[in-house]
Amino acid sequence: MARLGIDLGGTFARAAVVDEQGKIIAANKVALEERTPPAVVEAIAQAAQHALKDAGTNEVRTCGVGAAGQIQGDSGVMAVAPNLGWRNVPLGSLLSQRLGHSVRLVNDLRAAAWGEFRAGAGRGSLDMYTVFVGSGVGSAAIANGKLIQGGGGVAGELGHTKVVPDGRLCGCGERGCLEAYAGGHNIIAQTRELLASGKAPMVRELTGGNPDMVTPVTLEQAAEKGDAVARELYERIGLFLALAVANQVTVLNPARLILGGGVLTHCPGLRRRVVEGVQQYSSRTSREGLLITEAELGDDSGIIGAALLG
Amino acid sequence: MARLGIDLGGTFARAAVVDEQGKIIAANKVALEERTPPAVVEAIAQAAQHALKDAGTNEVRTCGVGAAGQIQGDSGVMAVAPNLGWRNVPLGSLLSQRLGHSVRLVNDLRAAAWGEFRAGAGRGSLDMYTVFVGSGVGSAAIANGKLIQGGGGVAGELGHTKVVPDGRLCGCGERGCLEAYAGGHNIIAQTRELLASGKAPMVRELTGGNPDMVTPVTLEQAAEKGDAVARELYERIGLFLALAVANQVTVLNPARLILGGGVLTHCPGLRRRVVEGVQQYSSRTSREGLLITEAELGDDSGIIGAALLG
Repeated sequence: MARLGIDLGGTFARAAVVDEQGKIIAANKVALEERTPPAVVEAIAQAAQHALKDAGTNEVRTCGVGAAGQIQGDSGVMAVAPNLGWRNVPLGSLLSQRLGHSVRLVNDLRAAAWGEFRAGAGRGSLDMYTVFVGSGVGSAAIANGKLIQGGGGVAGELGHTKVVPDGRLCGCGERGCLEAYAGGHNIIAQTRELLASGKAPMVRELTGGNPDMVTPVTLEQAAEKGDAVARELYERIGLFLALAVANQVTVLNPARLILGGGVLTHCPGLRRRVVEGVQQYSSRTSREGLLITEAELGDDSGIIGAALLG
Repeated sequence: MARLGIDLGGTFARAAVVDEQGKIIAANKVALEERTPPAVVEAIAQAAQHALKDAGTNEVRTCGVGAAGQIQGDSGVMAVAPNLGWRNVPLGSLLSQRLGHSVRLVNDLRAAAWGEFRAGAGRGSLDMYTVFVGSGVGSAAIANGKLIQGGGGVAGELGHTKVVPDGRLCGCGERGCLEAYAGGHNIIAQTRELLASGKAPMVRELTGGNPDMVTPVTLEQAAEKGDAVARELYERIGLFLALAVANQVTVLNPARLILGGGVLTHCPGLRRRVVEGVQQYSSRTSREGLLITEAELGDDSGIIGAALLG
């Protein structure tokens, strides 16, 4: 009996057959030609059939889908999926009709956290906290060996904790969210503001004055080369991230803290600041025995987690 | 078969026999004449025996003890009990030897939260967050119907989340903790500083200039009477509390938020600020469906929670 995991992104549907320990036995990937719900369901079904065939099995014990978007708890409905342009699509039930077995739909970040918990950097612990800093900022907490989903199914929104009351406008429509400062898109936007101000010579040098060349790495490099205004912004972002993560460590007291996501991977200086800040600002008792680590499963964490959650 | 709950404070040991629904059938209270571990164990045993006798039972199904102090997870050891002057006392095993049955020892705040969850304001929910603002600031979270204890058993230390990096010195030895601003002892200390500064006329008027007359209510009343520096401090404390609680609502997404403790009970203006701040600063999705409420069981929450946790 196979555990089937599906990872639905904006351009591909990936399927994998995974064993009880979270090892991938067979995997397949199908490009999303169209983004309508029926076309996406069909692409997922194709990927799943190929993966099952390659694994030499036909019987699905569990099936989980990790998808980028907002999914409230175990509703099976994608409330918002920005990559696909969807709103309120009942993907869980559409897929279970097409595949002929039950399907559990979860947010991709929770799937990835669960994969790391069961088969990666969280293995052997019961209490884990995962923070991803990519274009946005998200988190997933596991306590007593279970994902914290929350009463409304939307737990983990670290990116929308407030760090500056009535501060910078966030993509969510509210003000002062951590993500409005520390999310990759907003690091780029703030660095472009520095470039436009004419006060950040190293940002200008690194980008040739072209705002389209700005990435989060630009800010880190400009700060490290001694650009004073870039440094000020960079320190501020690092402090906001460190305090937010440290305060969650204090309240949740995880045994493992996993820091992942593109911004922290490509900006090692920022990652170091977060690690040091967590050690400095989390409460002494909560950080005793805390292991801060990187994700181990890379891009496979979501598909493995989906398979094991299903 | 009885569920036995014990509430160990600094001056009394209370015991109660509680039914499955958390109703108290019989209760007893014994003063702590001495505070040595054997004397306290004996006082607890006396209170328990009287309560059991009054309830007309002798068979104990579960026994839980809620005690003021630091208890790591299910260790049964009181690492620090300031009221009793204890360090590293294995109260759980001492009690289970004396009473002849197993005993579960938990922190009083967790016991109170569990009581509210099972028999009070949290009844019917699976995800609850409780914040107590008294002389200190503490919290307890329940997710998926279980207390979050954390990998090291010290989850919930909201009072030691950092609100001002390297700020005011806290009783824990670290700087900038929420409790260093918003805990009752520290509200008093800061209000005394205002009094000593000579810049807070209403604080002087309310106390007759006597620092010993300062309570947290003094600050609220001085602020409400228009004392500018008192108002500034009061607003700051309210904002720190509101942001800290709101950010936990965003991450934990509880169905119920319970606000309790002496400071919030006696300072209704401060409580209102926290409630309004949570509605303003928690993420929109996390506060949908959130019910903010008061504790229902009063002083009995801890003893009922201990009985039901045991």
